[in-house]
Amino acid sequence: MYRNFAIVPRIIFGRGSLNQLGDVLKEKRVTDGGYMVFVIDDVFTDKPLEGRLPMEGKDLLLRVNVADEPKTTYIDALVAQIRAYSDVTPDGIIGLGGGSTLDIAKAVSLMLNNPGSSADYQGWDIIQNRAVYHVAVPTIAGTGAEISRTAILTGPDKKLGINSDYTLFDQIMLDPDLLAGVPKEQWFYTGMDCYIHDVESLNGTFINQFSKSYGEKSIDLCREVFLGENDSAQGDKLMMASYFGGMSIAYSQVGACHALSYGLSYVLGTHHGIGCCITFDYLDEIYPAGVKEFRQMMDKHEISLPRNLTKGMDDASLDLMVTTALNLVPLWENCLGSDWKNIMTRERTLELFKRM
Amino acid sequence: MYRNFAIVPRIIFGRGSLNQLGDVLKEKRVTDGGYMVFVIDDVFTDKPLEGRLPMEGKDLLLRVNVADEPKTTYIDALVAQIRAYSDVTPDGIIGLGGGSTLDIAKAVSLMLNNPGSSADYQGWDIIQNRAVYHVAVPTIAGTGAEISRTAILTGPDKKLGINSDYTLFDQIMLDPDLLAGVPKEQWFYTGMDCYIHDVESLNGTFINQFSKSYGEKSIDLCREVFLGENDSAQGDKLMMASYFGGMSIAYSQVGACHALSYGLSYVLGTHHGIGCCITFDYLDEIYPAGVKEFRQMMDKHEISLPRNLTKGMDDASLDLMVTTALNLVPLWENCLGSDWKNIMTRERTLELFKRM
Repeated sequence: MYRNFAIVPRIIFGRGSLNQLGDVLKEKRVTDGGYMVFVIDDVFTDKPLEGRLPMEGKDLLLRVNVADEPKTTYIDALVAQIRAYSDVTPDGIIGLGGGSTLDIAKAVSLMLNNPGSSADYQGWDIIQNRAVYHVAVPTIAGTGAEISRTAILTGPDKKLGINSDYTLFDQIMLDPDLLAGVPKEQWFYTGMDCYIHDVESLNGTFINQFSKSYGEKSIDLCREVFLGENDSAQGDKLMMASYFGGMSIAYSQVGACHALSYGLSYVLGTHHGIGCCITFDYLDEIYPAGVKEFRQMMDKHEISLPRNLTKGMDDASLDLMVTTALNLVPLWENCLGSDWKNIMTRERTLELFKRM
Repeated sequence: MYRNFAIVPRIIFGRGSLNQLGDVLKEKRVTDGGYMVFVIDDVFTDKPLEGRLPMEGKDLLLRVNVADEPKTTYIDALVAQIRAYSDVTPDGIIGLGGGSTLDIAKAVSLMLNNPGSSADYQGWDIIQNRAVYHVAVPTIAGTGAEISRTAILTGPDKKLGINSDYTLFDQIMLDPDLLAGVPKEQWFYTGMDCYIHDVESLNGTFINQFSKSYGEKSIDLCREVFLGENDSAQGDKLMMASYFGGMSIAYSQVGACHALSYGLSYVLGTHHGIGCCITFDYLDEIYPAGVKEFRQMMDKHEISLPRNLTKGMDDASLDLMVTTALNLVPLWENCLGSDWKNIMTRERTLELFKRM
């Protein structure tokens, strides 16, 4: 059985395409007295981007803070805030930001049409009702959140996405101009999220020619961006690398690095991009060629990673880290095959975390 | 203004995935007393593929003949045949075959929901109502018909597609096993349709990083298939090359070769794949590197093209050929820029046709 793979059905790509957002939303403003909700990373508070949003009438600007990765409690609070703002369900949710902001936009658009807490839906295909129309406008590239069928959340007892076809955005707007101004470290860590997706997908057991074609082109684009000469198309390339990387894993899976980094994030709150980089640097045995190339990229861009994150950590916390990582069964199956439990034992996982 | 590019929202990729067609259709059988129409190339008459179709109840098997490229009169007759079969509009149309069969499936699914003749809709965005749910199951790879927003038809006064977002399939099923048994010449000519799409897209003035990423990977896959060693993944690669080639031109455009080959097809009925090959072989001046590589592919596979197609043709027919080709304004703009009329004059076009 092959997955009947759902894809975001509408894309606008191009520099300055943000200027078309108003036109795109116009035909989605269907409810009398309705409104749109712009979910925007609060780093843009009072910045020019906010002034460019095509807000009308009762539209709501919802600044979100992603200093911490999105929590289910935060999603529930944002949904409550929208419901308190109006009895009417909004005509659309527009997410503007990086992976965390886009995941918030996805989760909010799902929860407006589904009862209970977002924590109830962490897992695969639990969501019952389709989401409110939702649009992604990435302002940083690499996560693949614009194309993935998951909204990754930290819940009361796990870090796990709301994975469903309904999670997918209805529209993506890829405007490479929006990448200008991203700080170098964040640019690098987020770009590496994409590079690592590609390595995990291409070296996984789930790979097929569909995922391979996307993954190979994505990793080529990453190499052009992170190892090639600086050229004016860098932003365009990184946006396409991110999209292709997302397309590659959507039909296959990520692997060991993402699984372990989830453990790190869940216990320590480490951000996803940097968490992946920290983890990947210890995975020579699993991804030898990928890790070697990753270190070349770090050298070229003079990136130094934090060390000794787990030093002095108590056993219970380390144990929780291991459990969180090993709970991500599909990721390990993709990475190591059906016999993964005998290869990535709790002991080996613990030893890896202790080195980080 | 960038195009808000619509993409087929559902894909199944994998060998043997045809076995899942019944499951895919199940949830689309929504009308009481409704039915599905399987539009299948009549080369499969009484062949195993017909026996594998998940037909139920009142489902209709519609064998189509594509010895000639699809005509608007043929579409209108097929639509009349379905309407005569039942007062109820079918729940879905499933096209199984090559580019011509898929284009028939697209056009029929559009015309079941739109009044008049299919000839009324040749052009861009003339169609008013969405199509009946329609599925593509390609049995030959290269045309990109599975992903394109056009259904190319020969009408009373032109060869031109019904171009619209509604033309797009709702579902693609890419089963590389179905490519087994395609005759070598047809395999080559149809594959070259894809290769030529890539050359035209990558060398066009409309190119952006989105189309470039797809086009570059598609042409790499074509090189692996047509210049590399024979390997077991050839079919998988050609299916992905076709899909990526289609994605590349969907955001940009094809160019000189397609425009000229339309003239050839319109007047002489030359099939699209072979018509593109015949034409491309005379386009050294416009696509020097592409034509050179194309000839290497021909040599490797011992393909010899028909010659002297236009020999002895009367002036009126040649004139119609020129007019048909030059009417395809977006293709020429993509190929040669806004000044194209001064570069590709009627005289130069005529001279090119006379050499074919």
